[in-house]
Amino acid sequence: MIIAVSSLDNIIRDLVIANRILAKEDVVDAYGHVSMRHPDNSNHFLIARSVAPELVTADDIVELDLDGQPVGDEKRTLYLERFIHAAIFETRPEIMAVVHAHAEDTLPFGIADATRLRPVIHSGSFIGSEVPVWDIADNFGDTNLLVTNMEQGRDLAKCLGGNNVALMRGHGFASAGRSLIEVVRMSVYLPRNARALLRAKQLGGRIKYLSQGEIDARNRGYSPYSTETWRAWEYWANRAGCGHLLTRPEG
Amino acid sequence: MIIAVSSLDNIIRDLVIANRILAKEDVVDAYGHVSMRHPDNSNHFLIARSVAPELVTADDIVELDLDGQPVGDEKRTLYLERFIHAAIFETRPEIMAVVHAHAEDTLPFGIADATRLRPVIHSGSFIGSEVPVWDIADNFGDTNLLVTNMEQGRDLAKCLGGNNVALMRGHGFASAGRSLIEVVRMSVYLPRNARALLRAKQLGGRIKYLSQGEIDARNRGYSPYSTETWRAWEYWANRAGCGHLLTRPEG
Amino acid sequence: MIIAVSSLDNIIRDLVIANRILAKEDVVDAYGHVSMRHPDNSNHFLIARSVAPELVTADDIVELDLDGQPVGDEKRTLYLERFIHAAIFETRPEIMAVVHAHAEDTLPFGIADATRLRPVIHSGSFIGSEVPVWDIADNFGDTNLLVTNMEQGRDLAKCLGGNNVALMRGHGFASAGRSLIEVVRMSVYLPRNARALLRAKQLGGRIKYLSQGEIDARNRGYSPYSTETWRAWEYWANRAGCGHLLTRPEG
Amino acid sequence: MIIAVSSLDNIIRDLVIANRILAKEDVVDAYGHVSMRHPDNSNHFLIARSVAPELVTADDIVELDLDGQPVGDEKRTLYLERFIHAAIFETRPEIMAVVHAHAEDTLPFGIADATRLRPVIHSGSFIGSEVPVWDIADNFGDTNLLVTNMEQGRDLAKCLGGNNVALMRGHGFASAGRSLIEVVRMSVYLPRNARALLRAKQLGGRIKYLSQGEIDARNRGYSPYSTETWRAWEYWANRAGCGHLLTRPEG
Repeated sequence: MIIAVSSLDNIIRDLVIANRILAKEDVVDAYGHVSMRHPDNSNHFLIARSVAPELVTADDIVELDLDGQPVGDEKRTLYLERFIHAAIFETRPEIMAVVHAHAEDTLPFGIADATRLRPVIHSGSFIGSEVPVWDIADNFGDTNLLVTNMEQGRDLAKCLGGNNVALMRGHGFASAGRSLIEVVRMSVYLPRNARALLRAKQLGGRIKYLSQGEIDARNRGYSPYSTETWRAWEYWANRAGCGHLLTRPEG
Repeated sequence: MIIAVSSLDNIIRDLVIANRILAKEDVVDAYGHVSMRHPDNSNHFLIARSVAPELVTADDIVELDLDGQPVGDEKRTLYLERFIHAAIFETRPEIMAVVHAHAEDTLPFGIADATRLRPVIHSGSFIGSEVPVWDIADNFGDTNLLVTNMEQGRDLAKCLGGNNVALMRGHGFASAGRSLIEVVRMSVYLPRNARALLRAKQLGGRIKYLSQGEIDARNRGYSPYSTETWRAWEYWANRAGCGHLLTRPEG
Repeated sequence: MIIAVSSLDNIIRDLVIANRILAKEDVVDAYGHVSMRHPDNSNHFLIARSVAPELVTADDIVELDLDGQPVGDEKRTLYLERFIHAAIFETRPEIMAVVHAHAEDTLPFGIADATRLRPVIHSGSFIGSEVPVWDIADNFGDTNLLVTNMEQGRDLAKCLGGNNVALMRGHGFASAGRSLIEVVRMSVYLPRNARALLRAKQLGGRIKYLSQGEIDARNRGYSPYSTETWRAWEYWANRAGCGHLLTRPEG
Repeated sequence: MIIAVSSLDNIIRDLVIANRILAKEDVVDAYGHVSMRHPDNSNHFLIARSVAPELVTADDIVELDLDGQPVGDEKRTLYLERFIHAAIFETRPEIMAVVHAHAEDTLPFGIADATRLRPVIHSGSFIGSEVPVWDIADNFGDTNLLVTNMEQGRDLAKCLGGNNVALMRGHGFASAGRSLIEVVRMSVYLPRNARALLRAKQLGGRIKYLSQGEIDARNRGYSPYSTETWRAWEYWANRAGCGHLLTRPEG
């Protein structure tokens, strides 16, 4: 049992690291959040209470169910948009971690309709060949654009479908990964891919996107705890000032 | 009376925090300023003496009247453009705080006449559906572009009208809020909204602006001391190195 | 005499501050330099030996004559391009300080010929209504683009004429001011003005440049040691980590 | 022998500095690497084990042969793409150092086919007049875009030919220099040259590229340990927090 507790401790520590990385890499500011499915109960997930990701500590992590409701006697204020996470975990059993953020350079692709966001750089491959754009207005009319209930969350999850990322018009994006490290990495490289595509368009001419075969080849080779994947996680954690929180699975 | 003094102290502390946040978030540099209406005298307002916002401390805060003149025996040099604040407080009784700044990415929208700045992202909704552009040359001819008297200030306030933000051609912007936290937030997200719109235009095609209904819905839900609003204030204050100055209203 | 010595010490300290500010504000990197005419001998000027501006200390300041040759027994390596400074000081007796730098966002305006760099923001007014572009190839053919002798320096100074800034094609710019504070300020706001103009062009439509009358009005009001001017100098010096070196003239 | 050891120590220290500089200047992030030919055995080269460049220390440096295989009993995980380095060192005997990186602003030029990357600024001259674009898909079809064997490495080296830099479509670039300082410098200024060209295109009109004569003139004047070259190395090392590791050749 001590081992199990310790394992959960490590997972919470990883979630704290993920929060800090996303803040340091300008994926989130005061807003945006990252969650993990609970390792011992696939009907629950872990996410911070309502606090800026850069300030998150282990004590801020709460446990929610797949309706976005707190487990136990949690009294603290929760993220208004926790339903994004709940609905994606509900709809996609293979998904282990979710990010929602407003990373600035993804926004234009949800606002202008002439260019679809697709992978143009190898580190952007994990966003997948299709990045749907969800517009909350399509089914909910005039709202404050926030996903504040399960119905909206499920509508977003439906638009996301089997893809890894959905843009949210005038708001940001939701990304879903098979591991925490994967979803953080995807969320860091998503804006970079967006910038590369925007600037390539400015240069003009034909754009060479990654082919479906290339996207597939990269997916096949992906492993969340390979040396190459860990290298980025370790680097970003150190940059975010929490290298001391790192625990490697085999450790 | 001790409580009243303490309350004013807290308000001044908030104004110091606002100065530091605006500096850290690149809204102001050596120039630009933020003010608050005096809590006990709606005909006065608080603003720093002529010093860079990043260097402002509580001792730098001065009290001015709605003609922009100092109250009491204040001998220190004042901001040349304090009349922007005075005129807006004079014209708009509901306004509690004002920012004037030169945030770089707002400038193109005051210089080029083909694209009007409007909200395209949810965090930009508070700038409102109309952002007028004030050109000092229209009524004052060739000036140094600074708002250095009440006549110019009132002309700007007239252009601002009932809106939240006015761009100032070749110069910057003035924003007005119902609270200090609101005006700081608006001033931080204004340049982000500007960048998102500029880049969406570069991508081409039709731009999806926020609808009037969306802007209204967001306004209805806004509360200066909600958990969500406080989250950003707390985050920005910490980033600006003055988390230790934070005082929450109920505290 | 002690006072004179002290005065020179203060001037050298200001020159160190100027070096650090230009580095911190991304006007220079390892390359680029700033100089001041010698206060006691208008035929000499002060500039660092060949070292990156960010690393300059008082001991690095050397005294050169208007041919760019060292005064006294100076043995250290000098900047290859010191002739830019020598030639401008030679040609323009009213000029007290010179900057040469490669600030990135000024470069496009020396490379593309469709848009001339002109003031569009009030803080850019000091670059003046005319910013000529000097191309070393016009009179010297294929060179390494560096200004490495007086003939080239004088050719650049001739192109600069009575203006405040000349762009140097594929290389950077030279700016000339009536005081050190003025030339530093001009050099910091020059790239910002360039960015504002580039982005305004991207938005499209008619560009509103500052009028000649506005440029003149701003020039008339300029004073190197006004509170407003000092405010920026103090701010930038603090950002650059050398607030402790500040000495105000009256002090 | 002690001297030889000491010399190798200095070289390894330089390689550590190069890693840190490339990280600090945003040329690499967790990915990308820099190598040096072994000073005592031109059939070997030195490069870090698989770790983020910002975290590299002397202990991380490994010795590989020109097939990219480790020398001795090295058991640690190596960079997957070490074959880029091996193949360039194999093909180009005069090359002493190689960088592979994904610097963001070089990417658009490998994705869009309308504008070729060429030198437009003097500090960009060292990339040379021809920057070929290598597309791994041309000869290897759908891959994960990584250069993971000698065959791919040699194909890239063939595309590079006698040039200094090759862009890699959707991936990054490889640069080759006559010294470590040269290749670091080239890699830092390559993205700057790319940005200057992109923005010059946005301004419109005719672009003035560096002439072949100018590129040649700059090459002729280049020396890896001149005062001017050292100035940048010293500056970048200090910025990267490892000024204390600097050793000058004559020292």
